[in-house]
Amino acid sequence: MPDHFQVEHQDGGCRARTGRLTTPHGEIQTPIFMPVGTNASVKAMRPEDLTDAGAQIILANTYHLYLRPGHRLVEELGGLHRFMSWDRPILTDSGGFQVYSLTELRKITEEGVKFRSHIDGSMHLLTPELSIKVQEALGADIIMCFDECPPADAGREYVERSLAMTTRWAQRSKDAHTRRDQLLFGIVQGGRFSDLRQRSLQELQGIGFDGYALGGLSVGEEKPVMHEVMDACSDLLPADYPRYIMGIGTPEDLVEAVWRGYDMFDCVMPTRNARNGMLFTSQGRVNIKRKQYEQDQGPLDPACSCYVCRNYSRAYLRHLFRSGEILASMLNTHHNIAWYLSLMGRIREAIRQDQFEAFRKEFYHQQHTTAENNKEEYNV
Amino acid sequence: MPDHFQVEHQDGGCRARTGRLTTPHGEIQTPIFMPVGTNASVKAMRPEDLTDAGAQIILANTYHLYLRPGHRLVEELGGLHRFMSWDRPILTDSGGFQVYSLTELRKITEEGVKFRSHIDGSMHLLTPELSIKVQEALGADIIMCFDECPPADAGREYVERSLAMTTRWAQRSKDAHTRRDQLLFGIVQGGRFSDLRQRSLQELQGIGFDGYALGGLSVGEEKPVMHEVMDACSDLLPADYPRYIMGIGTPEDLVEAVWRGYDMFDCVMPTRNARNGMLFTSQGRVNIKRKQYEQDQGPLDPACSCYVCRNYSRAYLRHLFRSGEILASMLNTHHNIAWYLSLMGRIREAIRQDQFEAFRKEFYHQQHTTAENNKEEYNV
Ligand SMILES: [Zn+2]
Ligand SMILES: [Zn+2]
Repeated sequence: MPDHFQVEHQDGGCRARTGRLTTPHGEIQTPIFMPVGTNASVKAMRPEDLTDAGAQIILANTYHLYLRPGHRLVEELGGLHRFMSWDRPILTDSGGFQVYSLTELRKITEEGVKFRSHIDGSMHLLTPELSIKVQEALGADIIMCFDECPPADAGREYVERSLAMTTRWAQRSKDAHTRRDQLLFGIVQGGRFSDLRQRSLQELQGIGFDGYALGGLSVGEEKPVMHEVMDACSDLLPADYPRYIMGIGTPEDLVEAVWRGYDMFDCVMPTRNARNGMLFTSQGRVNIKRKQYEQDQGPLDPACSCYVCRNYSRAYLRHLFRSGEILASMLNTHHNIAWYLSLMGRIREAIRQDQFEAFRKEFYHQQHTTAENNKEEYNV
Repeated sequence: MPDHFQVEHQDGGCRARTGRLTTPHGEIQTPIFMPVGTNASVKAMRPEDLTDAGAQIILANTYHLYLRPGHRLVEELGGLHRFMSWDRPILTDSGGFQVYSLTELRKITEEGVKFRSHIDGSMHLLTPELSIKVQEALGADIIMCFDECPPADAGREYVERSLAMTTRWAQRSKDAHTRRDQLLFGIVQGGRFSDLRQRSLQELQGIGFDGYALGGLSVGEEKPVMHEVMDACSDLLPADYPRYIMGIGTPEDLVEAVWRGYDMFDCVMPTRNARNGMLFTSQGRVNIKRKQYEQDQGPLDPACSCYVCRNYSRAYLRHLFRSGEILASMLNTHHNIAWYLSLMGRIREAIRQDQFEAFRKEFYHQQHTTAENNKEEYNV
C-alpha cells in the first residue's frame, strides 16, 4: 500500500470513491479535475483566479514547454512552479499524445518519435528518457511515462504491437526516473480492445508505478466504447493507487468515470469552450451569444457561487463576448473552471454520503443529457 | 467658484496643481489618468484589477456603447456602473471623435453627423441632443459636449467654421442636459491655431460648463504644436475648474500637460501597447519580446510595486507574449495601467512639495526621452 494515496471513502452503492493524494506541493482531494495550462498558463486565468475557482492541481504540457521556452530555461528559472507563480501541485504529461496530435512528419521507432515542431518546423527526437528528463527539469509533482497513442480507428494488430512498445517505453521511463520526490504514473493503452487494455494494465503493474492512467480515450470513439474500456480496466486496477483518465471530458464523462471508480481527470473543454462562449451551468449548457440573454439581468448560473456569477449578468457576459473583449474569455473561463471544480466537490460530498448513484441520476435530469448522449455544445 | 472642484495645492515653481474633483461615485485626486474602457471593459482588466492598479476613474465610449449594446439596454440594466460592475466614477466621451476616426460615409451638417456604423454598416445620425441623451442613459459621472474634431492638417478657414459650429453644438448639448447629478464638460477645438483655440475657449466659458477639455490633440500634429496649444489655453482657462486634455498620451505628454496646469487625461496607449508587448518602466520602454529578457529573472520594473512586478519575471512575461497567451495581455495591461497611475501619484506628491519642476527633469533623465522626442515604442 503506497503512502502517497489513501482511499478515504468507498461509496456503498457503486465503485465511486474519495481519496487523498499527497504531493510535494500539497494534498489533493479526489476525485478531482485538473485545469490544463498548456504553455505554463491556464488560458485567461491568473494563479489567484485558479485558486479562487477552487483548483487543487493543474496540468502543463511537456511537449509545448520542451519546445518553448525549453525545459532547461524553466529549470534555470527555478522550475515550473516558480516560473508561473503557482505553488500548488502540477502534473505534466509526457508529450506522447501531443507528438501524435500536433506534429507532422513524425516517425515512430523503438527508440522514440522523431517529429517536426508545430512552432518553427525544427526536427526533434522525443524518447522515453528525454521525456522524463524534460519532466524532471520542469519539476512537476506528478509526471507521466512516455507512451504511443494510437488513433481511435487503429486495428487490433497495430494496437497490440503499439501497446507492447508502450510497455517497453514505460520500463525505460521508470529506469530514467531519478527524482524520487516526483510521482511517476504509467499510461494504459490498448485502443478500443478491452482485453488489450487489460494486458497493458497488467504489464504496467508488473513494472510498478505510483498511479495508473488510461490514455487514448476521447479521441473519437463512441461513448459506449469509452465506458466499456473504463469498465474493463476498473475491474483490474489496484484499489490503493490513484486512477487517472487522460483528456476527458464533458461533465457527463467525469460522472461516468467517477461512477466506475476513477479519481483524476483533465481536459481543455471547460477553458476552450469558455473562449467560444459555451458555458456550463447547473441547468445545462449555455451559449452566451444567444439573443435570449440580451436583457437577462440574472447571473449565468443562479446555483453557482463563483466570482463571475456573484458579480455579472448574462446580459453583460453576452455583450463582452459579442464585442470580442478579452474580459469575455477571462470571465467565461473563470466560471467554467469554477463550475467543473464545484461539480467535483459535490461529487466528493455525494460519495462521502454513499449517495453517488442518486447524485448521478439527478445530475442527468438537471443537465437534460444522458451518459451516452452529451455534447460539448448544448443549449438550455 | 464651483463646489465640485477644489484646487488643493498650486506648485510654487510652475503651473502644476493638485485638486479634488467630486462626483456621485466618489472623489478623484487630480492630476489623474483615466484608463479607457471602450466597450464597458478596460481591455483584459476586471474591475478589481483596475482598483488594485489604482484606478480612480475610467472612461467609456459613447459611440461604441450607443451602437452595441445600445444605451437603452444599459439604462434598463441599471446604468453603466451596474452593467460593468464598476462603482467608481466614469467619464463618457460624446462620440464626436469616434464618428470622425472610425466611420465611413459621414456627412456633417449643422444638425449633426450622419455616419455608417463600423460594426454592421447601419446608418445613424448623431446630434448634440442624442449624444447627451445617450450619455444620460449610460449614467456616467462626467459627460462631454458633442463636438466636431477637425483633422490635424485642416486649414484655418475650415477650423474656424468648425469651431463656430462646435460652440453652437456645445450650447445645444448644455440645453439638452437634464441630469443635474452629471457634470458636463465643454470641448475646446481650434486645431493648431492658438488664437482659434482661445476663441473657442472663451465662447465655451460664455456658455458655462463644469469643466473644460481640449479636444483634437495628439491627432498627428508635432509635439511643439501640441505644447503651444496647451500653453495658449492654460493662459485663459479658469483656475477653479477641472482641465482635461482628451486622448493623450505618452508619459512625457502627461508630464508636459501637468506642468502646464492640466488635471485629467485619457489614452488607449498603456492598454493597447501592453497588448503589443510594449511596457512602460521607470527606466524607459521595454519591448518584452526581446531576446535579452529570455533568462531575466528580475521583475519587469524593480521600482514598481504592482501585482505583476511582485509576482512574475521578465522571462515569464516574455514567454507568455511569445506563446500568444491571453495572460500576457492581462499582466502587461495590469502593469502598464498601474505604472501610469503610479506616475500620476508621484506627480501629485511632487506638486504638493513644490518640486514638480525637479521631478520633470529627473523624469526625462530616467526615461532617456525629452518633451519633444518621445515615442510609443522605445527600448531600454
Ligand atoms: Zn459561476
Ligand atoms: Zn509593475
